[in-house]
Amino acid sequence: MTTSDQSLASAEEHAAVDEAAEPAPAPEPAPPQFEYDFDNGNFIKDLITTNADGRFPSEDAIGPTDAPLYIWITHMFMMSWFDALAPYHPTAVGICSRIERRPASESATNRNKNIAGLYAGYRVLQTVYPERALVMGQALALFGLDPDDESEDPATPVGIGNIAGKAVIRARAKDGMNHLGDMGRTYHGEPFEDYTGYEPVNTPRKLADPSRWQPAIHRHRRRVGDGPGDKGIFVAQQFITPQVRLVKPFTYDDPGRFELAPPDHSDHTDAERYKRSVDEILAASAGLTDEQKVKAEFFDHTGAAITLAPRAAALAHDLDLDGWAQLFMTTSLARFDDMIAAWHQIHRYDSVRPFSAVRHVYGDAKVTGWGGPGVGTVDDLPAREWTGYLPPGDHPEYPAGFATICAAQAQAARRFLGDDVLDWTWPYEAGSALTEPGTVPAEDLQLHYATWTDYERDYADSRVWAGVHFKETVERSLPFGAQFGDRAHEFVQRHINGEVED
Amino acid sequence: MTTSDQSLASAEEHAAVDEAAEPAPAPEPAPPQFEYDFDNGNFIKDLITTNADGRFPSEDAIGPTDAPLYIWITHMFMMSWFDALAPYHPTAVGICSRIERRPASESATNRNKNIAGLYAGYRVLQTVYPERALVMGQALALFGLDPDDESEDPATPVGIGNIAGKAVIRARAKDGMNHLGDMGRTYHGEPFEDYTGYEPVNTPRKLADPSRWQPAIHRHRRRVGDGPGDKGIFVAQQFITPQVRLVKPFTYDDPGRFELAPPDHSDHTDAERYKRSVDEILAASAGLTDEQKVKAEFFDHTGAAITLAPRAAALAHDLDLDGWAQLFMTTSLARFDDMIAAWHQIHRYDSVRPFSAVRHVYGDAKVTGWGGPGVGTVDDLPAREWTGYLPPGDHPEYPAGFATICAAQAQAARRFLGDDVLDWTWPYEAGSALTEPGTVPAEDLQLHYATWTDYERDYADSRVWAGVHFKETVERSLPFGAQFGDRAHEFVQRHINGEVED
Repeated sequence: MTTSDQSLASAEEHAAVDEAAEPAPAPEPAPPQFEYDFDNGNFIKDLITTNADGRFPSEDAIGPTDAPLYIWITHMFMMSWFDALAPYHPTAVGICSRIERRPASESATNRNKNIAGLYAGYRVLQTVYPERALVMGQALALFGLDPDDESEDPATPVGIGNIAGKAVIRARAKDGMNHLGDMGRTYHGEPFEDYTGYEPVNTPRKLADPSRWQPAIHRHRRRVGDGPGDKGIFVAQQFITPQVRLVKPFTYDDPGRFELAPPDHSDHTDAERYKRSVDEILAASAGLTDEQKVKAEFFDHTGAAITLAPRAAALAHDLDLDGWAQLFMTTSLARFDDMIAAWHQIHRYDSVRPFSAVRHVYGDAKVTGWGGPGVGTVDDLPAREWTGYLPPGDHPEYPAGFATICAAQAQAARRFLGDDVLDWTWPYEAGSALTEPGTVPAEDLQLHYATWTDYERDYADSRVWAGVHFKETVERSLPFGAQFGDRAHEFVQRHINGEVED
Repeated sequence: MTTSDQSLASAEEHAAVDEAAEPAPAPEPAPPQFEYDFDNGNFIKDLITTNADGRFPSEDAIGPTDAPLYIWITHMFMMSWFDALAPYHPTAVGICSRIERRPASESATNRNKNIAGLYAGYRVLQTVYPERALVMGQALALFGLDPDDESEDPATPVGIGNIAGKAVIRARAKDGMNHLGDMGRTYHGEPFEDYTGYEPVNTPRKLADPSRWQPAIHRHRRRVGDGPGDKGIFVAQQFITPQVRLVKPFTYDDPGRFELAPPDHSDHTDAERYKRSVDEILAASAGLTDEQKVKAEFFDHTGAAITLAPRAAALAHDLDLDGWAQLFMTTSLARFDDMIAAWHQIHRYDSVRPFSAVRHVYGDAKVTGWGGPGVGTVDDLPAREWTGYLPPGDHPEYPAGFATICAAQAQAARRFLGDDVLDWTWPYEAGSALTEPGTVPAEDLQLHYATWTDYERDYADSRVWAGVHFKETVERSLPFGAQFGDRAHEFVQRHINGEVED
């Protein structure tokens, strides 16, 4: 079996089968059942980011649009990898830990780095994503690594991995995200629950203030296409993790220091401007092409379109294992610190989504727009029945979270790589879209992004095609996000070069 | 293979595997791969109600607590079976169809009834539960039945089944449940969506009227224990199918004719009575035993505790196939018509749930109650953090939906069977509960209900133990429900005896 055929996903599958067949624990450490080439392999490339062959991981516990969860959780992983590899690097120091440097001989091959990185990630997983811990532990065992080895010997890769992973968890235990559910209450807390008491001024049924956010009512099966959930159940949105604005950032202290002009384009006291924003949304909805529909879906998927983009760039630049870990660290930090500042503004402006604004402007009047799966564009759509091609994200509209995040990541990658090359191709078979399965796209279609600049442009526009953000919002979101790419790059470079004061 | 080893579930499993292995359709009708004894078998007993070996069907698309969905959908099935079997009965006539009676020779064995019943159910499934249609079609094929045979020849069991199933769908296409999502709007409708515009007077964060319903905020993974849903996402409840009160009943015209006294025990203008109701809830929460916890979970599961109860009674009374179909029809109709009247009152009184009332009465004060999984009873629980052992259902509190429904069904069964015998045993292994897995119950435990009267008593009490209904509510809900058992029995008997005017 070659390295590229392997993945944690397939190992986990194997592990799950084994578990069913042989529930009794083996008395002796079993020999590895997957021969992984630790010396020449790259665990990020070979094992982690190959989940579901790089396609949409449909059965994950995190919804594809739930960016704050993805970004916070993946950031914990990226930091644990970076910190676990630092002792094997000539100059690097960790972000959450200071582990003594190892002799250069121990990084002659990738073996120690791969082992340290896998243990570090596993320790993080056990706390922040326990749903996946059992199968990852089983997968490690298949590679011949003992998941129960809790050694913290700083002279071994297992110990270094464990130290690095636990240091990340310790450093972020009270970072404001409430991933343990223990903030603001003693009993019955839930992981990632809001502890700030955010309350919308509008209810799902009444738009009291047409400039402010209105939670949408939607099916319990909230994912595009279908996904896990209960038939016939409807729920109202709650602002997703409004506490993100209080999470401790890395590259600045106060998210309020980054300016963003008010969303005057969705201020209903300027009725003309407000209507123009609505009309731009309706025009996009009425003119949707298959390519736009596919891009809207693609870019709506945090796990694929955001967190997998650095994989494409790393492949295009043929980076080594250190390069992979550093690029992933840099782009992850850009997303993370951007997200905190973006959530600060999202909460501050608490801005209306297009679906509410369309209904407010046109009420019962008929408009032209997308009429539903298989229906296409219709010209007799009562405005109060209008919906975007995709369901709106569950937070206020301004700035556009995804657009700022992709801009932050794109700028971080450009700075780190020294060029704009992304070279990412994503094929869509005819009929493979989720919203209109069997009909969209009508023919096979291939997305290709030669540069990060192309990628962020389409990313931003796709939010308008999806009907979830105003045009002016995404235009302003790109430059807002880019500054965090610069900050992240400079922060990570200081850690790579060991230019950090303790 | 004996009859009792078979089930649609296992056939479906087999079918799913086959599908993966051999995607190409066979050019010739394949011979049956499961030899089912159509002459002596009983499809309800052998194939339908054995789903998941009679255990909780955990992966179903309908949430366990989503009674209106279960009850409406299963009622369509029960009617299709009853109507499909009627032509083979000496006197019976269908509820939604009038199919010419067949010669007695055709009901010498169960063969024709089984075939007609399976086709009828499949036609219903295709419309009201399309998620399951593909696998049931494959399962039918494994039994040698062609799922694509749309014949409506009233002289054959296939034709009779198809006629009966389609008649049910036709009769209930516009019955008010909105199962096609086409009521009140032209575009972007969703199956089972509210079209009545119900809006709660309270928001999830503000209890403006302490006597009225307040939607709860909960995890997106709303099922007890875990279940399908997205990590880190919170949503606010929407009143589940408030339109049920407008659904067309069978045994009366106007649900408003059934009296139910106002919920004075949760009227906050009588502060003393209101507090007494709250204190009863807190006392139950503080005194929870393992047996009560297990019963709370068991009776919270519509699919198991409600719709499977008639199976136990049918086995205890050794009913023949006609008896099974008639008992299921009678209990289903009792549930259905009770539900409509109960929803009329639930909507009318729009009554507060215990969790809101506890917080209203005690605010930040410390109370004694259940402290969470593995925590047990604590005496320093801030009242605003109190929650019941189970999450509250997503509709107002009075009457208690489940308590009225089980009382309706119990009375229907007693009338139909001529006695009170249920004889239902349900084992719980130690640690098998969903809310506190691994710890509850501490030891193996067996629920046994000798009579329907025992069953409805525990059912009602379990809603108080669960913390989701007030004690006085469930006491009043039992007699309210029972009257629909009588009505259903009399209605079905008229159809069995052919004493129906067309």
